[in-house]
Amino acid sequence: MRLTSFTDFGLRVLMCMAGQPTRAFTTAELARELRVSRHHLAKVISRLAAANLLVTRRGGGGGAMLARAPEAIRLGDVVALLEADQALVDCFAAGGGTCTLTPHCRLRGRLAEAEAAFIADLNRGTLADCVIRLDGV
Amino acid sequence: MRLTSFTDFGLRVLMCMAGQPTRAFTTAELARELRVSRHHLAKVISRLAAANLLVTRRGGGGGAMLARAPEAIRLGDVVALLEADQALVDCFAAGGGTCTLTPHCRLRGRLAEAEAAFIADLNRGTLADCVIRLDGV
Repeated sequence: MRLTSFTDFGLRVLMCMAGQPTRAFTTAELARELRVSRHHLAKVISRLAAANLLVTRRGGGGGAMLARAPEAIRLGDVVALLEADQALVDCFAAGGGTCTLTPHCRLRGRLAEAEAAFIADLNRGTLADCVIRLDGV
Repeated sequence: MRLTSFTDFGLRVLMCMAGQPTRAFTTAELARELRVSRHHLAKVISRLAAANLLVTRRGGGGGAMLARAPEAIRLGDVVALLEADQALVDCFAAGGGTCTLTPHCRLRGRLAEAEAAFIADLNRGTLADCVIRLDGV
């Protein structure tokens, strides 16, 4: 099983911001430290801001920062948010997929429960457990 | 999060075989019923046989069938087997990935625990819970 790189980058951004929660980070700074394209990071930051996990400020000294304390951001909720468009298997996709077994399938419910168990397990922790302090940003 | 289509197809094959556990299925029959390429199914069946979940017989009346009762095949073990090469995030890959945060990251362990929780949740059930009886094969 695999998380999207979108989610992976989002988690990296949040961990870095948690290390300096009162500081605004520009996309350029994060791109340099994480060695990820600005384009990708801009999309991730936009999604996190839309979900009210980040606040963004324009202009000089602007950038993005956490909208709440790292202790108040649960890891599972972050992953569930960033993976919202990602179907665990074909039949979980919006169109219902092409699996010929779907009408009779009893595995779907079990997979959905297991996915929920994954998120619930992550929700035992918060971003405060995964703080990274970047030097040199 | 997403499972590979390899795993998805493997689960479909096993569910069908569980419906007629004493019957040998050819790759051609499964390809027709599941509307999946023979090439993909042959690779999946080969992996399942290598893991002693299936037995294969050559020649007329040959094919593949379950090597043990559906009750003795746990769903999480199947998924763990088929996803063995699939890294949850970049840094779980064999080469260690390219994430600049890896040396200081405390999220990795949490993600590994959540992945284990996913498999453990699936292991509450067996293939016997997900039998599909194909008609017309």
